This record gives sequence, C-alpha cells and structure tokens, in this order.
Amino acid sequence: MHLTALDDDECRALLAHQAIGRVGLAIGALPVILPVNYVLVGDAIVFATDPGLKLDAARRITVACFQIDGHEPWRHSGWSVLATGRLEEIIDAQSEARCRELPLTPWAISEPVHFLQLTIELLTGRRIVRA
Amino acid sequence: MHLTALDDDECRALLAHQAIGRVGLAIGALPVILPVNYVLVGDAIVFATDPGLKLDAARRITVACFQIDGHEPWRHSGWSVLATGRLEEIIDAQSEARCRELPLTPWAISEPVHFLQLTIELLTGRRIVRA
Repeated sequence: MHLTALDDDECRALLAHQAIGRVGLAIGALPVILPVNYVLVGDAIVFATDPGLKLDAARRITVACFQIDGHEPWRHSGWSVLATGRLEEIIDAQSEARCRELPLTPWAISEPVHFLQLTIELLTGRRIVRA
Repeated sequence: MHLTALDDDECRALLAHQAIGRVGLAIGALPVILPVNYVLVGDAIVFATDPGLKLDAARRITVACFQIDGHEPWRHSGWSVLATGRLEEIIDAQSEARCRELPLTPWAISEPVHFLQLTIELLTGRRIVRA
C-alpha cells in the first residue's frame, strides 16, 4: 500500500473537477461537517446557502475547511483533498452577480440565496494506492 | 425540492450500510476532515488508525463528528448523516481483540494499528429529493 502526498496542482485539478464537497466548521465547541455543491473560482471555493449554520459562521468570518474525496473500494484505493481558509459571505453586488452566473445548482435552497466563499490558504491532499 | 430530516433509525441504518466516512476534528483552532473506513458497533463508530492527528485527538478524549453522505447528482438528490460524540482510543485488551475481528481493512496503515471509537451522542440526518 502506498500513501503519497498530492502536490498543489493535483489538489487544484481535483477541486476543479468535482462538484460536491464538505465544509468543516466548529459551531460553538462542536465540529460539524456539511455537504455542499460548489465551484472553484480562482483561489476560492464558492457555494450557495440559505440562512443557517454556514451563513452564521461566514458572517463571523470563521476559519473553515473544505474536503473532497474519491474511492474505489474494490481496489482499496482512494484520495482526499483538504483546503483550509477563511469562510466569508460574498456581499458586494458585482461579485454576487457573478456568483449567480456560476453553475451552482442549490439542491435545497429557497430564495434568497447567499453565496459564501472559502479562500484557500492551506491545501493538502493524499492518495492511497494498493501496492 | 424537499428537504426532510432523517429519524434516528434511518440514520443508523445508513451508518450500518456504509463503509467510508469522514471524521471532523478541531486541531488547534483549525477544523480538519479526514476520511476513514469504519464499522458501526452498537453506538460506536469504530475505525483503525496509525499514529497521527486522529490518534492524538483521541488521546485527548476530544469531541469529534463523523459524517457520511450519498448523492445522485443527475437527480439533484442526496442525503447526509452527522454523528457527534467523544472520540477515544480503544485500549483494553479484550475490546481491542474484538476490533481485530471486525471487517476493518485499513488501506494505508502499517502496524501497529490503533483502534478508535466515536460514541454517538448526537445523531442527525437529512435527505434532499427533487420535488
């Protein structure tokens, strides 16, 4: 079994090609993991949300993480990418208008939608491959 | 689009039928999400690990969360389950021996393996279905 670190380019390529990931936050003292569909825009992971835990956290300008992974259980191989950075609401009108053009298809959101971004400051990934 | 809460039985049934999930921890002030393969044993999510972030956290008897999800992107439907509880190392010899009999197949671990358990104290889930 080989465990290898993914370099920055590999991590970004994987982030660019997936559509669903998970935001990790501390709410009070409790860690939570919440799935979102997202788009990578430059150095930011952008997703839509309705009022709730994620929006509250973003309005406190929290440090959050974002994770994606993929698996081939029958081969016991898989990979994961973890990005960490500030989570913020996108509030300026021009940026928000651009978000509305993104292929973000919120699955469970009633209007009004809020857009959040996690700006990547740390990026790590690893891959496990059967020897 | 319908967003519905999953009841406790549905959450446990989903936990019992999956094999890969994600542990959410705060390491220092930073949230992290780490994929693991696991088995649900009674009220505990059990997984194997080698020395590292997860083991260090377990030895501090941290509160952690554990998340699984599933998606059908073409139907814009999906579900997720989030369990929260204490993360601990399994250290007594009898329990550890039982862990070695579990269908836990660590993908990237060299001996010696350590077994961790997250005892479920909070359990929530939700499902999104296209109307």
